Amino acid sequence: MTQFKHVTITGGTHGNESTGVYLVRKFQQHPTLIERDTMQVNAIHTNLKAIEQVTRYVDQDLNRSFNFSTVGNESHLNYEQRRAIAINQELGPQDAPKVDAIIDLHTTVSNNGVSLFPIHLDAVSGAVAHALQQRVSYPVNIVICTDPAMDSNSFLGSVAHYCFGVEVGPLPMGALQPQAFQQTEEIVFHLLDIMEQFNQGKLQAHPEDISVYDMTGVIDFPRDGEGYINAMVHPSLLDKNFQLLKTGEPLFQDFFGKTIFYEGENCYPIFINEAAYYEKGIAMCLTHKKNISLAS
Amino acid sequence: MTQFKHVTITGGTHGNESTGVYLVRKFQQHPTLIERDTMQVNAIHTNLKAIEQVTRYVDQDLNRSFNFSTVGNESHLNYEQRRAIAINQELGPQDAPKVDAIIDLHTTVSNNGVSLFPIHLDAVSGAVAHALQQRVSYPVNIVICTDPAMDSNSFLGSVAHYCFGVEVGPLPMGALQPQAFQQTEEIVFHLLDIMEQFNQGKLQAHPEDISVYDMTGVIDFPRDGEGYINAMVHPSLLDKNFQLLKTGEPLFQDFFGKTIFYEGENCYPIFINEAAYYEKGIAMCLTHKKNISLAS
Repeated sequence: MTQFKHVTITGGTHGNESTGVYLVRKFQQHPTLIERDTMQVNAIHTNLKAIEQVTRYVDQDLNRSFNFSTVGNESHLNYEQRRAIAINQELGPQDAPKVDAIIDLHTTVSNNGVSLFPIHLDAVSGAVAHALQQRVSYPVNIVICTDPAMDSNSFLGSVAHYCFGVEVGPLPMGALQPQAFQQTEEIVFHLLDIMEQFNQGKLQAHPEDISVYDMTGVIDFPRDGEGYINAMVHPSLLDKNFQLLKTGEPLFQDFFGKTIFYEGENCYPIFINEAAYYEKGIAMCLTHKKNISLAS
Repeated sequence: MTQFKHVTITGGTHGNESTGVYLVRKFQQHPTLIERDTMQVNAIHTNLKAIEQVTRYVDQDLNRSFNFSTVGNESHLNYEQRRAIAINQELGPQDAPKVDAIIDLHTTVSNNGVSLFPIHLDAVSGAVAHALQQRVSYPVNIVICTDPAMDSNSFLGSVAHYCFGVEVGPLPMGALQPQAFQQTEEIVFHLLDIMEQFNQGKLQAHPEDISVYDMTGVIDFPRDGEGYINAMVHPSLLDKNFQLLKTGEPLFQDFFGKTIFYEGENCYPIFINEAAYYEKGIAMCLTHKKNISLAS
């Protein structure tokens, strides 16, 4: 039976997501806040140089750098590739992790609210996610990713048995706001408490159906021949994360005010207009809402 | 008598303020939009490398790089210092500008709304600003700066006779939103129309009193011995730009929820929690509201 014996809280995987950076610093200075009886818990900064520069990354996105099969000659690795190897040695390795669970702290400029991204959804992580939803007064959406184009092995969380990405927004990059700070901290404390109760046999491992948003694809902005975008997210869709987008509804608005309509099937977009995703060719991620049974 | 014969619209002075970057691109592709009978108008990108990298600046803030008396050996100039010299040659020089007015396009993650920053406020620029306020349906706050610590000679606008900084927010860096895009464009068109009318003798050069916010200082975050901030802007003050902050009201909240109160004199803070200002030691800029008579 799984136990959460070693748990690591990671902040600054994107160096300009300051909430996680400052929360990890708080936990390091006040370690009793994250102490729990049945677990060893620590908090670390992951992308050190990016944190120092208050930038998302230095050479490439650290949270897409953990698929080591794609890494080339070790003597030519860039900063994040080297950090990924070091973190894998410290917390992993991926095939035999020292760490049972990572809580990876993120923020977004997009209106995602408070959302939880379990890398692997099984009876155990589902029970944790479900328990979290019961304990807070605001909605916590659970997002999984079955889009084959998204390589979950490339995520930082791949170096532990379980990873819970915590994503809070909207919040500017490089800035702190009390509500996001307190909500993120509260989610961390709840997750630790829930894992502790799980260790003590006090948590049901098999909740009933769990409602999740399954990320199945992305939409890019319309772009011109030079790669510049030539339309913006339509005002009627902006900030409508986790809300139903129907076929035929407004999707983009071009620079002259003309509307471009959504032609895909009904979905629930998230990360709508996330600034960090422009360069990835992503105007929003598309999810489908579904109920998953985790009963074994 | 002043005439606005040469006007330049500048975008990307901060490379991640994408609204200005894309508006300038639109104006370059559709120059008739900014053509006016009595003026030569062009639109240029200023911080080219920062625009390419979608970052505020590469080596230093371009909009603080135009005080050439502080520039050292020309062979050791960094990227923005070299750009400042090139822009001064193209549009200036400062002591005999080729350009009569610059319209410099900015955005902020702070809740500044739509605001206008005329570098020099005199009867002419005051008349332009006042006319602009009459023509739009939303408030446009006018901000001047008499804080001696702010070296207005270091601003890009110092290379023209007049400069109108247009600042729109809140908006994430590196992202576009239709409302901010359209408002910024509308402000540009109004400013051009107003200057055109001024050239044609159809605009009163001397409005009655004009109400401005005079930036007289800044407040930094509380910081620890290592320079890390240890409190955030208080939730009751966040987003309250251009609103009265009274002595004794909440200012910051530390990471444990404790409130720190404002001890200065009553003022109207702006750029509250602007992410790009953390590194400058600025949590907000303080302004005082005053009426200025521009009658000659």
